[in-house]
Formats: sequence, structure tokens, C-alpha cells
Amino acid sequence: MTVNAEKTAVLATDDVTFVTGELRPYLADLLAREQGAWRERAGTSWADLPEALAAYLGGGKALRPRFCYWGHALAGPDSSPQLLQVCAALELLHTFALIHDDLMDNSGTRRGRPALHREIAAQHRQGGWAGDPDQYGHAMALLAGDLAFSVASRLAAALPAPAVPIWSRMVDELVLGQFLDLAGSARQDRSQGVARATTLLKSGQYTVTSPLRLGAALGGVPELPAELVRYGDLAGEAFQLRDDLLGVFGDPGRTGKPVGDDLICGKPTQLLALAADMLPPYGQALRALAGTSALTPSDAAELTSELTRCGARDRVEQKIHHNVRLACALVDRAALPSRAGDALRKLAMAAADRQR
Amino acid sequence: MTVNAEKTAVLATDDVTFVTGELRPYLADLLAREQGAWRERAGTSWADLPEALAAYLGGGKALRPRFCYWGHALAGPDSSPQLLQVCAALELLHTFALIHDDLMDNSGTRRGRPALHREIAAQHRQGGWAGDPDQYGHAMALLAGDLAFSVASRLAAALPAPAVPIWSRMVDELVLGQFLDLAGSARQDRSQGVARATTLLKSGQYTVTSPLRLGAALGGVPELPAELVRYGDLAGEAFQLRDDLLGVFGDPGRTGKPVGDDLICGKPTQLLALAADMLPPYGQALRALAGTSALTPSDAAELTSELTRCGARDRVEQKIHHNVRLACALVDRAALPSRAGDALRKLAMAAADRQR
Repeated sequence: MTVNAEKTAVLATDDVTFVTGELRPYLADLLAREQGAWRERAGTSWADLPEALAAYLGGGKALRPRFCYWGHALAGPDSSPQLLQVCAALELLHTFALIHDDLMDNSGTRRGRPALHREIAAQHRQGGWAGDPDQYGHAMALLAGDLAFSVASRLAAALPAPAVPIWSRMVDELVLGQFLDLAGSARQDRSQGVARATTLLKSGQYTVTSPLRLGAALGGVPELPAELVRYGDLAGEAFQLRDDLLGVFGDPGRTGKPVGDDLICGKPTQLLALAADMLPPYGQALRALAGTSALTPSDAAELTSELTRCGARDRVEQKIHHNVRLACALVDRAALPSRAGDALRKLAMAAADRQR
Repeated sequence: MTVNAEKTAVLATDDVTFVTGELRPYLADLLAREQGAWRERAGTSWADLPEALAAYLGGGKALRPRFCYWGHALAGPDSSPQLLQVCAALELLHTFALIHDDLMDNSGTRRGRPALHREIAAQHRQGGWAGDPDQYGHAMALLAGDLAFSVASRLAAALPAPAVPIWSRMVDELVLGQFLDLAGSARQDRSQGVARATTLLKSGQYTVTSPLRLGAALGGVPELPAELVRYGDLAGEAFQLRDDLLGVFGDPGRTGKPVGDDLICGKPTQLLALAADMLPPYGQALRALAGTSALTPSDAAELTSELTRCGARDRVEQKIHHNVRLACALVDRAALPSRAGDALRKLAMAAADRQR
């Protein structure tokens, strides 16, 4: 690989100013042009789904573009004209995933706001349109997700050849991760194997390693250094473990998600898989109810306490800290340009130590 | 354009044997390999969504691959190695569209079988899995659609450069067409403009012209002859008009779709738009109820009779026949290789004159 330390250090911008100063305006412009093309082709002013999607975008942490940005910075300071394009594709892909996840999980809130299908249903009610508002909200949000995915795929298909298979594999892993989540809940799978595979796919690879790899490929670095691959898996796992803890112990006012949902759905999380060996019989009995309608909210609250009492929560906390320490050490060992190294350490810490 | 009449005439296979003999086995193999990769990455034998998708595929008319096949044949007999790839992408894209359409319309049947979400819900019940079977069926079918779209996009991204923007535009038009369908129903739009734009997008371009164009581009014909562009729009419109008639007057035993659905949903069809000028006051009143819960099944039956009585049904029939005649004349004028010309005439007639 070619890492150019001095040159990278003169990069005037960092990942956050890149996201706010360049990526968000690029996305807004992209969807405004899409909106214009729709109005023209449909011959009607109410063909407004791209606009609705643009309004829904943003507000998140934009982790994937930020990792992509630093993957790209490994190659040197010359910004590839496709960096914005691939980062926009990553944000749109993630928006697709969030919208469809909320439909699949039947979640009413996202980032403290109503989920998109709820917003659209409210619009339907307000407009006094024909048909059932909730069904319309579901249908139109489903289609908004499809639109986000289709625009993301269009951007990705126009990337330079080395980036295309990285993208395709990432998308495939995203779908597989979501499948394991849904099917694992239904089958009440509590194995460590499935929980770890889900974590690795949904967060390690999808959130960290693949965006790093995409950025690097655009910069002309075909192979991500082994230390960064391992970094991505560790930091991504820490991110997902924090998510698992927030889903059970988080403050709904900050996470924007009702607490207890993961237990009620019986998500195949590592927390629950770990608890298999640690819970006392009463906790085991409650855990067996997770994901079934027999688990009442007060059972869920009890199970939450049991998960703390038996030490499973602490074990997950320890694992998060262990992962982050190891990930930071790997960044040191990779001898990256100093801005990239600093940023990747900070991102790993931020992903693992957050309240929402 | 380069049309090579003699060479095309020696093509040993035609579109139907291509679909059954080559495309279906190619798709089965593709999804079997996807299934293998999923099992390996997930480390569990029940990661079976690609298999479920493969079982659901097929059984349709495979119109898009067949048009693509003949677009490709315009260039001569040398089969592009990517012809199968793009045809597989077209079938997967269409499967994605059907699965998601059935969710959006909340349709229980497809091609005379239970819709995919129903099949999966039944499997959930049979397995005695955790959670609500219907919610699981919806969630998993949504994800199966996403998987189909993601595999289609992966195949499309690896196509030669001239084909990629044709693909992207086609996908965008598919999403826009579905949007007009949903939003037009909700807003009770009965304008000819929206009805025609929906028809053109959903059937003219998506079903006929874009597949022809994709096939031609793969064969090295960058620009589809103007006659064939027009042919596609006309034949596609005829196809959609037949669909509209079948949705109201068809035999549910043959269409596999409950009759009256289009009226109950208030789809923005050309049939209903035409009827705006032709229905007597009583029919108008019924038509105004289409898409609202106020339209009872017996109203729908009455409206069906009114649509015949006022002549709107005949007008649509005449338009179908006019389109097909014109489309066939355009094929004559384009002076295509004889096998391609014969096939395109037959396809236009078959699309317009079918009972399912």
C-alpha cells in the first residue's frame, strides 16, 4: 500500500467538516435533481418522493462516510472525484436499511422522531386522502427505501472497477445480517455463533471495514492493511455491543428508541447469548420468554435487572473496552498518517462510548 | 445500427428456449451459489433466503428477458457473454417489484399462488416460531425483495459501460411508476396525464423498450432504432391496458388475482381516466367512490357493468388493437432480421391478447 504521511497531514478538512460541508450539500443537490427529473417525467407536481427522502436523510452520525473518508485519506491528499459519490451512496444505502428495518421491526420511532412510515401516514391523514393511512404509510415508506437503494446502486455502479465488488459484497452482507436478525429472533436462536456473525456482518463489516476498504480502493489502495481489517471488525463489534446495551439499558430520551424492544423482539444479541451461561434459573426462565408474547413489560424490566445482576452486562462492557483498546493499538501498529490515525482512534472510542 | 439479417437467421434458439433452457438454470445456479455463500458466512444451515427466493422465481412470462433477447439479436448471432447476466438481472428486478408490490397493495395472491409474504407467514405458523406470523411474513418478504434487488444490482453493475445507465434509468422509472400508482390512488387522481405516464413508465419503458435497449447495447448497438422505441411504447401500453381490463373484467381463476382490486384500490388506470367522459351520472358517482372504503363489493360489480355499458371498456379494447397494429407495422418498417421481426410481432400480440 502507499501511505503518504506528510501529504495527508496537510488535508485542510477532516471527516466532520467533510460530512457537513460537502457530503450533505451533495446529497441535497442529488435528490433535488432527482426530484426535478421525476416531476418532468411524471408531468405532475406531486411526484415528491425524492424530496421526502431528502427531508428524512441526515441527522445521523454519518459513520460510514466518515470511515470511508479516512480509508481514502490513506492513499494521500489527492481527493478522488468519486469520494463524494461513494459517500453519498453509503448514506443512501444506510437510509434504505433504516427505513426498511423500521418497517420490518414495526418500530414507530427513529432518532427520536416518528419513523418514516408514521410521518407519511400522518401526511395521509392530514390530506384526507383515500385508503387506509397506515397502509399507505407502510407502502410509501417501503418505496422510499427502494428509491434510496436504487439511487445508491446507481451511484455505486458508476464507481471505478475495483470499488464495485467491495460495494456489492457489502450490500449482500447487510441483507444477510438483517436476515439473521429477523430469522434468529423468530427461531429464538441464542447461539454465540449466530450472535457474533450478526454483529460482524451488521456492524464490523458494514459499518467500518467495508467503508474503509471502499475509500482506500478509490484512493488507489487495493488492499486494506491487515491491521485495519482487524481494527474494523473490533471497532464495529464494539459499536454493535454498545447498541445492544443501549437497546436494553439505554435512556429512551437519548436513544430515540423505546427501551426493552430488543428483549421483546428476542433479538439474537451477544448480550443474550452471553447470558446463557450466566443467568440464574429465574433469569433463564425470563430469557426463554424473550421474543414471545408471553414476555410482559414487567418481565422485560425484571430480565433487564437480572442481566445486570448476573454480570452479563459487565462482561459486555469489558468486551467493548477490550475491543477499543485493541483497535487503537492496531492503529498505532499500522503507522498511519497522523490525522488518519488520530481520527480512527477517536471514531472507535466514540462508537463504543455513546449514549445514543 | 448494425443489423445482420443473415447471421441472425441462423440462431438456433429462440426466446422461449433461451428462457427455459438457459436463463432458468442460470438463475437457479446463481441463487444456489448465493445460498452457499450465505450459509458459509453465517455459519448456520437455516440461512435460507436465497433458496426461498429461487423457489419463488419463475412461473411468469419472462417478458423482459425475452425482449432483451431480441434486442440483443439485432446485433447479430454472436451471443454476448453478458446476455444471460442481464436477463437474470431483469428477472430478479421484476421479482423484487412483484414481491414489494404485493406488500404495498396488501395482495394475498400472485400468479394464482399465495403471495410470498403469505407463504412465509404459513411457514412461521408451521414452525411454531416466536413472534407474529403475519408480521414475520411481511418482514421476511420485504427482505426477500431487497435481496432480489441487491443481486440484480450486483449483476447490472458488472455490465459493460454502455448498458449501465440504461439499467439505472429503467430502475428509476420502475420506482417512479410505482409511486404514481400508489400516490395517484391515494389522491384519487383520475387525469389522463398521470394514467398515461404510469402506463408508459410501468409497462412501455420498463417492460419493453428498456429491455430491448439493454439487449441491443450488449450486442454493440448503442442506439435502438426509432421504430423500435415507438414499438416498445405502443406494445407496452397495450400490455398495461390489457392488465387494466383483466384487473376489472378478468377471470380470477386465470389471472390469479381477485377481481375488483383495482377499483377497490382506485388505481389510476387509463380505463378509469377514459370513463371520466363516458360514464352516466350514476356511474360517475360510483367511480368517485373507487379507492375509498365506501365502495362496497356490490358497488364494484355495478361499476364494472357501467364501465362496459358506457363504452369505456370497448374504447380500451380498440386502443389495444390499434396499438398492436401500429406496433407490428413499425416492426415491418424497421426491416429487422426475419426471426426478430416475427418474434416482436408475436410478443406484441401475445402481450395484448392474453387472459392472465
